[in-house]
Amino acid sequence: MKISQPTLLIDERIARANIHQMADKANANGALLRPHFKTHQSAAIANWFREAGIHQATVSSVQMARYFAAHGWSDLTIAFPYNPLEVEDIQQLASQIQLGITITDISAIKHLEQHVSSLCDLWIKLDVGTHRTGIEPHDVAAFRLAMPALTTHRLKGFLAHAGHSYRPLTTADATSIFQSARDQLHQARTTWGDPGLQLSYGDTPTCTLLPAFEGIEEIRPGNFVFYDAMQHHFGVCPLTHIAVCMACPIVAVHPQRNELVVYGGAVHLSKDFVTLDTGDFCFGWAVRLGGAASWDAHTPVGQVVRLSQEHGIIRLDADTLATFHIGDVIGILPIHSCLTADLQPYYLSLTGARLSKWCPHGV
Amino acid sequence: MKISQPTLLIDERIARANIHQMADKANANGALLRPHFKTHQSAAIANWFREAGIHQATVSSVQMARYFAAHGWSDLTIAFPYNPLEVEDIQQLASQIQLGITITDISAIKHLEQHVSSLCDLWIKLDVGTHRTGIEPHDVAAFRLAMPALTTHRLKGFLAHAGHSYRPLTTADATSIFQSARDQLHQARTTWGDPGLQLSYGDTPTCTLLPAFEGIEEIRPGNFVFYDAMQHHFGVCPLTHIAVCMACPIVAVHPQRNELVVYGGAVHLSKDFVTLDTGDFCFGWAVRLGGAASWDAHTPVGQVVRLSQEHGIIRLDADTLATFHIGDVIGILPIHSCLTADLQPYYLSLTGARLSKWCPHGV
Repeated sequence: MKISQPTLLIDERIARANIHQMADKANANGALLRPHFKTHQSAAIANWFREAGIHQATVSSVQMARYFAAHGWSDLTIAFPYNPLEVEDIQQLASQIQLGITITDISAIKHLEQHVSSLCDLWIKLDVGTHRTGIEPHDVAAFRLAMPALTTHRLKGFLAHAGHSYRPLTTADATSIFQSARDQLHQARTTWGDPGLQLSYGDTPTCTLLPAFEGIEEIRPGNFVFYDAMQHHFGVCPLTHIAVCMACPIVAVHPQRNELVVYGGAVHLSKDFVTLDTGDFCFGWAVRLGGAASWDAHTPVGQVVRLSQEHGIIRLDADTLATFHIGDVIGILPIHSCLTADLQPYYLSLTGARLSKWCPHGV
Repeated sequence: MKISQPTLLIDERIARANIHQMADKANANGALLRPHFKTHQSAAIANWFREAGIHQATVSSVQMARYFAAHGWSDLTIAFPYNPLEVEDIQQLASQIQLGITITDISAIKHLEQHVSSLCDLWIKLDVGTHRTGIEPHDVAAFRLAMPALTTHRLKGFLAHAGHSYRPLTTADATSIFQSARDQLHQARTTWGDPGLQLSYGDTPTCTLLPAFEGIEEIRPGNFVFYDAMQHHFGVCPLTHIAVCMACPIVAVHPQRNELVVYGGAVHLSKDFVTLDTGDFCFGWAVRLGGAASWDAHTPVGQVVRLSQEHGIIRLDADTLATFHIGDVIGILPIHSCLTADLQPYYLSLTGARLSKWCPHGV
């Protein structure tokens, strides 16, 4: 296949293996896997989940819910605080599919009861330590007291996201984060006084590293379908489990500082990064592409050290650098696959097929 | 106008004033203004430049050149190293418009001579201290010796970008950076031995701060059309000169930590940031929106301290926080307007018009 611009390659075999591994773990632990589709944003890739027996998903926006609903997904949770300004789209969605709504405030429940006439499943977001949003565990009792009567909607349970697991961590760390979150979710349910409420938990680092878990009804990891160089940096996955790779044309070679410049910058990869032990910023790892546009993740050849709008700067050792030339195409394992995928118009499979995805520009 | 999702507002009056100020400075100094259109990527905004008497522009990719060529721009320089893998599109463009190509390597010139049969203007990129790409000043003589005879194309001159000016700087710093770059460009031309070669220089910080400049034929700043919170942080512009503002719905309020959460995250703003003197990361400044969706840049009300994919976290003082509620819309002056604009499907003017822009997804 001919690549002339930055192009996000996807290895279907790796992605399907990642899906099956997480689905098997959920099954083994008696939990429903409701994968977060914000990572891939693609109906084509969503089909791989469906073929693995998964018929429910999580999304991060009302508009993304509309996209997946239009592609036959009839059970979606929007894991983002209720936005009353989108109530018309929410009403329409709720009339079409089983729709989960994330609640962080009593006013949201009142607004929904007043303005949305089709059933929504309400999930109260519990802040289990990330401090991004959600109600704090010690506020559950007060929230319960302030809770209005539900006439149209139903309370489904408590939902948590352990965003504080996004750091280098061990299996013991993951277990500790999970157990703390689970205990807080259990306590919230006990305080509420309704044992029928479900508990939903999710994040890729702990759901990947936990050997087993129990006591929750649902997990919502998302990134695991692709993983990325950040998850590798955190100790969550080997580089060989990363399912996407940005193919980038080489446009300049600078032996005097062991760098090459690729067409592939912040508008293709995002400006997310990790700080390595050396103190260097890392925006991704460079890998050799094979003849069939697969890539060799076993031995990265360089590190993406800087990005500007269209340029990526890769540092390599001198001997490796000498094997690359202007006009070659090199691969980059992205640091944050969700943000990289978001910037792409489509995925290119290793067989040369274009996998379509949601385009926010098309809404 | 009704805003329900993150929407990039544009104040046409500010943008036009920024354009006129830079155009006047270029005129006063006898230089051609060839503005970089990667910042706005919009044919509608490009028209404001045309109305200011500007008929030449810079772009950062072949595909962006195609977009502006299709909108009537017949004199474009692609300020990104020649990518031989896009030679077919380059051939087509060169047959249609006056096309400037950035050269960093002898092999690129040979490739162009061999594969592109319509005239291109070649600009040799000189590395004046940024160390991103370009030939180093001490290599000009060797480059001259290796230069192949040109039969189809013509050498237009030397082109430099002072990317090392993107830091907090004073007018004296800007003058020093410019003078150093200009002296290196002059030396390159002298070494080459052709006084007819032109010198092109560009970056928003120095072109804005320099009270006057001389000795170059062309300037290529881009960001100045919008400016942003990063340029303000560098000391380049007041916040009131920023021409774009992301309108974001408020979805959660957290008085316990003086934070509010908006619908507006990394996929809307980008993850670029600056580090403030306090050590805090800043992803933008929050401002109050007026009734007509203009904004009050004189007194920012908060700081964007964290971003995830769809969430933005804004820190405010307690009294200010108390004036905002879920369902309100707040403005964010973006930290890096080029990357923020790149993520948007269109601009919304203060009169409610949608200004279209290039969509890389549409190519």
